[in-house]
Amino acid sequence: MQVSVESCFKVLPRGGVASPRGFRTAGVVAGLKSSELPDLALILSSVEASVAGVFTKSIVKAAPVLLCENFLQDTKGRATCILVNSGQANAATGEEGLRDAFDMSDIVASYLPETSPNQVLIASTGVIGKRIDVSLIDKALPDLIGKLGNSDEHNMDAARAIMTTDLVPKYISVEWECKGQVVTLGGMAKGSGMIHPNMGTMLSFLTTDISISPSLLRLLLQNAVDKSFNAITVDGDTSTNDTVLIMANGLSNVTVEPNSPEMELFEKALTWCCEHLAKSIARDGEGATCLMQVEVTGTNTDRDAQTIARKIASSTLWKAAVYGRDPNWGRILAAAGSAGVNFDPSQVSVWLGEYHLMKDGLPLSFDKAAVSEYMQKAAEAKYLSGMDQVNVYLKIGDGSGYGKAWGCDLSYEYVRINAEYTT
Amino acid sequence: MQVSVESCFKVLPRGGVASPRGFRTAGVVAGLKSSELPDLALILSSVEASVAGVFTKSIVKAAPVLLCENFLQDTKGRATCILVNSGQANAATGEEGLRDAFDMSDIVASYLPETSPNQVLIASTGVIGKRIDVSLIDKALPDLIGKLGNSDEHNMDAARAIMTTDLVPKYISVEWECKGQVVTLGGMAKGSGMIHPNMGTMLSFLTTDISISPSLLRLLLQNAVDKSFNAITVDGDTSTNDTVLIMANGLSNVTVEPNSPEMELFEKALTWCCEHLAKSIARDGEGATCLMQVEVTGTNTDRDAQTIARKIASSTLWKAAVYGRDPNWGRILAAAGSAGVNFDPSQVSVWLGEYHLMKDGLPLSFDKAAVSEYMQKAAEAKYLSGMDQVNVYLKIGDGSGYGKAWGCDLSYEYVRINAEYTT
Repeated sequence: MQVSVESCFKVLPRGGVASPRGFRTAGVVAGLKSSELPDLALILSSVEASVAGVFTKSIVKAAPVLLCENFLQDTKGRATCILVNSGQANAATGEEGLRDAFDMSDIVASYLPETSPNQVLIASTGVIGKRIDVSLIDKALPDLIGKLGNSDEHNMDAARAIMTTDLVPKYISVEWECKGQVVTLGGMAKGSGMIHPNMGTMLSFLTTDISISPSLLRLLLQNAVDKSFNAITVDGDTSTNDTVLIMANGLSNVTVEPNSPEMELFEKALTWCCEHLAKSIARDGEGATCLMQVEVTGTNTDRDAQTIARKIASSTLWKAAVYGRDPNWGRILAAAGSAGVNFDPSQVSVWLGEYHLMKDGLPLSFDKAAVSEYMQKAAEAKYLSGMDQVNVYLKIGDGSGYGKAWGCDLSYEYVRINAEYTT
Repeated sequence: MQVSVESCFKVLPRGGVASPRGFRTAGVVAGLKSSELPDLALILSSVEASVAGVFTKSIVKAAPVLLCENFLQDTKGRATCILVNSGQANAATGEEGLRDAFDMSDIVASYLPETSPNQVLIASTGVIGKRIDVSLIDKALPDLIGKLGNSDEHNMDAARAIMTTDLVPKYISVEWECKGQVVTLGGMAKGSGMIHPNMGTMLSFLTTDISISPSLLRLLLQNAVDKSFNAITVDGDTSTNDTVLIMANGLSNVTVEPNSPEMELFEKALTWCCEHLAKSIARDGEGATCLMQVEVTGTNTDRDAQTIARKIASSTLWKAAVYGRDPNWGRILAAAGSAGVNFDPSQVSVWLGEYHLMKDGLPLSFDKAAVSEYMQKAAEAKYLSGMDQVNVYLKIGDGSGYGKAWGCDLSYEYVRINAEYTT
């Protein structure tokens, strides 16, 4: 299951959405945030690109989500750019909010001669129930377009401009060889932690220079999102604005056909990038001191394994135990048992890191101090170093099912952040 | 929907499982808890009773749950007593634990000449993965049986003996007139808050002197549990030991037939008692400063309304906002939208107490300080006074569906309790 990244891909840790050929990006201060931090980003392809999106399953969808769904249907999955604002989510804003979103596309198109409004996708994140001041966007656009570029700084600026309460910007790119060409995939994301009221949106944008049909791109994106963004949980809540968009502009001249070796490699790269961004989001969960990775094997299906893994990663009791560095396997077992998946409890084994805590449904004796220290070390490891991760491993039976999920611990800080803010 | 208790029933606030005719109870210190607090209770009917049970849906079931399911099938729903211990949950104890549970039934039966072992039901709560020292139960039983009685003190003693980390014992009874006879229903419960590791079990025991078939009793109990214990959420986790048992010994000489007026009255009493005990458990959630009641109307079905109500009552973001006395309707809306129930967001209205926060999907302006003060007053109200409750009300549409759920706020204390304990 595990992709050995090094053997297939070259990771560019400071790359991002402008790394693939023909993409440029920028992030500026438009004045939408009272903090006067960057709040507007644009991702622009020099040629029309195939586009696919995965959106929130919430019944309460923000205006930009409705716009994207509408445009992607209109254009059959083609676009040239994505405008992203932070500050206001443009959710619970009714008909007026929807008009604002369409106005934003119109404004961007008016600055880009060869782009029609329905080729300008929009994403928003921030406070719910407040309208966006569209005149500020109009005012900021010349500056934003003037600053477009494809350096490491451009990737970082864009990633910063989409942040709300994230502590760190999240961006990455990978490149690999395919049919004698170098192809590149870049991405950025902002977190799902809901600090300030209603700012809890997970946004991610990916770009690549492969050539691919919108329908195949849609399929591969959905698979990658299921294994990554849908496998993280900070507090179990779903936002009105959650959006993942990918653009593929074909400028590498490498075409990805269904079930080809090129597709397999691209899918691995896409899944790896999405997992990397998803883990960055989980690690940056509100008040989190460490990342938690849960792997489940031995179920009948992958779906069953992932369901159990997600249940454990989102158990507030187990999350609090991780914060307390308490190897309390009973909470892992209780979460697994309540996931709605059938299994034989007398076959369950549980590990924390290298430590075997339970075998065939019965507790083993283990060195509690050593396991607790293992957990503490994860919290003391450098942020996003790869070591700041507590590994939970469950073997449920003899099936071939495998699933993975990520979460973070539950700290005082989570409660403070979410309780002390006053709307 | 709301039963006006006063008009139908007389509530006996210090009554309990020994209030109905022919029932006696007691609680003693058997030494199962290191704290030397009471840890063993018995509920005994003077004649064989109809019995029904609702058990944890977790795939990981504790030994006493397996024993109860086994005995209820054996006896077709007949029993004379229930033995309950706190201290150890007898879960994740394998074959040996199952043998311990059966031994406990044998021991009780050996002290009660006319009772066979399969008429002795067992429930346990406490630490997972530790065996019960059955010799301590054998030693304590003469004292326990000698102390059986039906006074207010006996009801309280039994309710105390089943507590683990509950702050207050939870017990109640109601009586009403039926065909010229007084009939009585009593109950007690312990909480679902999981403070110490793996002690998070919801147990409730009910007794009545009506005459009813086990199959009808099972049906009515399941309905009442769905509206009460299944509608509370402290942290969303399900225990290995969750159990609700009801005994009906017929000594009032009032028989409840299907779809009779007597059944209707009994069902109301049963639902009210279960709701009262369930709310007591939610209010006593770990670190909780107030109870939260969520009512949802206007869905197509009651099930839809209850699904949405439960999603809101269990949203950690909204729970943290309640702790912060922050009338953050966006979090209510986000939770409702992610409940998996279809509705039209532009028809949603939200109230907190008397305050109307949102209408037809759009935010209203309201006096935030006043709403915040309303929430604060709930936290300052006397514990379980009925005033220590924040009321959330959602109108989703024009359907006739109605549902209710209860939860508590999420405080620093929850995290402290769950993180700082070391196994």
